[in-house]
Amino acid sequence: MAELDPKSQVPLYRQLASHFIAQIETGRLQDGERLPATRELAGQLGVNRTTVSAAYELLDAEGWISGEVGRGSFVRVRTPSSVEWSSLLRPSVAPRHPSFPHEAISFAQSRPSESLFPVAAFRESAESVLRSSELSGILQLGAPAGYEPLRHYLLEQARSEGNATAADDLLITNGCQQALDLLRQVLVRSGDSVVLEDPVYPGVRNLFTNSDALVTGVAVGKNGIDLDAVGRLRPKFAVVTPSFQNPTGATLPLERRGTLLRIPGTIIIENDIYSALRYRGEPEPSLKQLDRVGRTVLLRSFSKIAFPGLRVGWVIGPRPLIQRLTEAKQLTDLHTDQFSQAVLLHFAQSGHLAAHQRNMLVTGRMRLEATLAAARRYLPQGTRWTEPEGGMNLWIKLPAPLDSAELLTRAQAEGVAFVPGKHFAVSGSHTNALRLSFARLAEAQIAQGIEILGRLTNEALEAERSRDREPVPAMV
Amino acid sequence: MAELDPKSQVPLYRQLASHFIAQIETGRLQDGERLPATRELAGQLGVNRTTVSAAYELLDAEGWISGEVGRGSFVRVRTPSSVEWSSLLRPSVAPRHPSFPHEAISFAQSRPSESLFPVAAFRESAESVLRSSELSGILQLGAPAGYEPLRHYLLEQARSEGNATAADDLLITNGCQQALDLLRQVLVRSGDSVVLEDPVYPGVRNLFTNSDALVTGVAVGKNGIDLDAVGRLRPKFAVVTPSFQNPTGATLPLERRGTLLRIPGTIIIENDIYSALRYRGEPEPSLKQLDRVGRTVLLRSFSKIAFPGLRVGWVIGPRPLIQRLTEAKQLTDLHTDQFSQAVLLHFAQSGHLAAHQRNMLVTGRMRLEATLAAARRYLPQGTRWTEPEGGMNLWIKLPAPLDSAELLTRAQAEGVAFVPGKHFAVSGSHTNALRLSFARLAEAQIAQGIEILGRLTNEALEAERSRDREPVPAMV
Repeated sequence: MAELDPKSQVPLYRQLASHFIAQIETGRLQDGERLPATRELAGQLGVNRTTVSAAYELLDAEGWISGEVGRGSFVRVRTPSSVEWSSLLRPSVAPRHPSFPHEAISFAQSRPSESLFPVAAFRESAESVLRSSELSGILQLGAPAGYEPLRHYLLEQARSEGNATAADDLLITNGCQQALDLLRQVLVRSGDSVVLEDPVYPGVRNLFTNSDALVTGVAVGKNGIDLDAVGRLRPKFAVVTPSFQNPTGATLPLERRGTLLRIPGTIIIENDIYSALRYRGEPEPSLKQLDRVGRTVLLRSFSKIAFPGLRVGWVIGPRPLIQRLTEAKQLTDLHTDQFSQAVLLHFAQSGHLAAHQRNMLVTGRMRLEATLAAARRYLPQGTRWTEPEGGMNLWIKLPAPLDSAELLTRAQAEGVAFVPGKHFAVSGSHTNALRLSFARLAEAQIAQGIEILGRLTNEALEAERSRDREPVPAMV
Repeated sequence: MAELDPKSQVPLYRQLASHFIAQIETGRLQDGERLPATRELAGQLGVNRTTVSAAYELLDAEGWISGEVGRGSFVRVRTPSSVEWSSLLRPSVAPRHPSFPHEAISFAQSRPSESLFPVAAFRESAESVLRSSELSGILQLGAPAGYEPLRHYLLEQARSEGNATAADDLLITNGCQQALDLLRQVLVRSGDSVVLEDPVYPGVRNLFTNSDALVTGVAVGKNGIDLDAVGRLRPKFAVVTPSFQNPTGATLPLERRGTLLRIPGTIIIENDIYSALRYRGEPEPSLKQLDRVGRTVLLRSFSKIAFPGLRVGWVIGPRPLIQRLTEAKQLTDLHTDQFSQAVLLHFAQSGHLAAHQRNMLVTGRMRLEATLAAARRYLPQGTRWTEPEGGMNLWIKLPAPLDSAELLTRAQAEGVAFVPGKHFAVSGSHTNALRLSFARLAEAQIAQGIEILGRLTNEALEAERSRDREPVPAMV
């Protein structure tokens, strides 16, 4: 007999249905057996007849029993055929990004160090929003273009810097990644030519190779993307990180920025998330500042300076574009989280952001210098690397014929991680290259990690040389 | 002579470049004029010669001047041709949602009332996260699948309710809208048949009509979507809100849920964001709970109960699907805002969410009853409406031949707003229908607003009748 608990939160009819399911699953009720009539069972259990009927309906709907008119309800034991989901899914062309266990010294992530986060200042900004009379409005559904006070603040700032003209507007996005995705959605048609830097970080590459655009990778040297190649290709779109590119750390010098802007017809998507992290040298104007014809779209974010967990970035471009992006944003996820937008506005307006940026610059400079010094000291002859003036990344090319993925295996055994070059490949292979992200590590760790990488590279070179020296047996 | 300020934040070379741009723009420097030699100007200004060179390079890069080797730099005045952005943009097929000025009585928004937000409880949850030792980690870049403690909490809850099986997994999204967008991206191929409810809220309609799917709207009656039609169509996908559908408020009864699940081969996307807002009657099991073959994907969100400004929803489905959705999520925006996820986890775990839900149920019930009572009292004979048992919306059909968009014009003049039926149309027209969203309004406002709508409807009917009575002149 079913034991029902009238005080339970679970309705009686569901308790009763569960009782029968247990009976069927344990085999106490067999296929084809008849269930008691509703009136009879209701009397036995002391419950309303509709409770029993509801339980039977539920069992019927779930396929445990089937009712036959005038005859009653019968147990129906069957194994339903399940859905083959993997055949339903559209193919993914995005290769997986490697994941790393927690290595002692990880050069694998291009992100700020959380130990440098100004947590007290963040708390103050958050408390200020929590105390604000605007809080209810911030927690209510907002506008697709973004939290208006933040949008206004960022647009005014961009105008005063020359990063937005009177013809421009601004949309808040969930970081730069969403801005790139929305731009792809509203601009790129099937077969459009898109130039990406090669190497480039997987987030931008996967987005465009996963579309039906014609993607070409153009080599990045120490002075940025190869402009002769871009000029020959004259693509419809070029996605460029002119300052401290990820993964190379390379920067386009001023005169080359002008050259890029003079390539006729190309729309430039300027991914400008690292430029605020310049540790040495003179700041360069953004492509957007230099652009006099309105063919540059500027992407920025708080994520590389402040709190990537909050996902707030923005895109600046001509008004018709921003309007269309805002429509796409609304379809995608209505709008970006408003609480975080409000907190970051306070964080910026109160001066906390500028103070944190100054601190990031001091620390970043020390870490960059430690990285370059350790590279000079420990990396064997024949190794080449970029010498960035800011950002978070350095690009190292090992002497041929070394493979950075093999080096990684050996490095991980000694507690050091980095991302092999092949993960950043668009058209090239980059098997002998690797990205060293130095922003999260203290100087001592940087030196120790690069010392290990240098020793392992030397050992690998030595192994190659002794292999070369081994006499090759005569073919007989 | 240029006046440079060495104490300014703006570098000297940029100050100098700005000086020349102003000269050119005001016509004091004419097209073809030669700029002073760098050495000479540096001497006059008392600055380093590299400062002058940098200014000239900037002017050259921006296209204000052109340097000729051995001859110097010359002003080049031209009007650059600007980009025709509107021709670059891919066409948008998403009709605009109407926007309303701040009407005194607005039935136009299907969202919770911000005056009911438990702001003190939200503050407590936020403060708890701010004090937590996890804060730095929460502000750092996170995992695409979501903030793991929240993901775990929601998945365990779903398992205990029978909304997730051992074969299921869960992805956190920016509300249900993003879950729908990601599902469309990974599942729907060109030409796939997709059934939507008709009427349905524009967010879901625009998402699928903007894709290359074959979208069919199937009528929604007071017992939900027309299952005979769905059974005849046997679509590949059906997007269904079985409880308190937006805009109709209709609910699929239990036995009809079973019927829907027995339609062979159709994948069901269950949009279940209102079911927690049941004010009357017995709760129905979700389609996901009833589904024994794993063909239902369940979408849920905090947004209709708690704080829509925070954008946190989730999707539950078979593991291979969730894995693929997580890859798509990473490409789209890396992950959902982590601070809000952490705050909502505390809000749920501490019991604040359950307490708020109880409050929402008490208020919602009074508002629903006020709406139904006012409809019976004020709406003229021939008007029909749904009688939902929960949610936020009621669907009203005006007597033929009235047009709800015309009624809206007259209603707005008296400070009342609603959304005309045509904005929810998929295949039908719904010109005589309208959506009344009652969740944000106090009972007195509801009664007053519906009284106005009733009077205006009567006046419109009277005008129609007197038009009918007018003698039609003979054709001569």
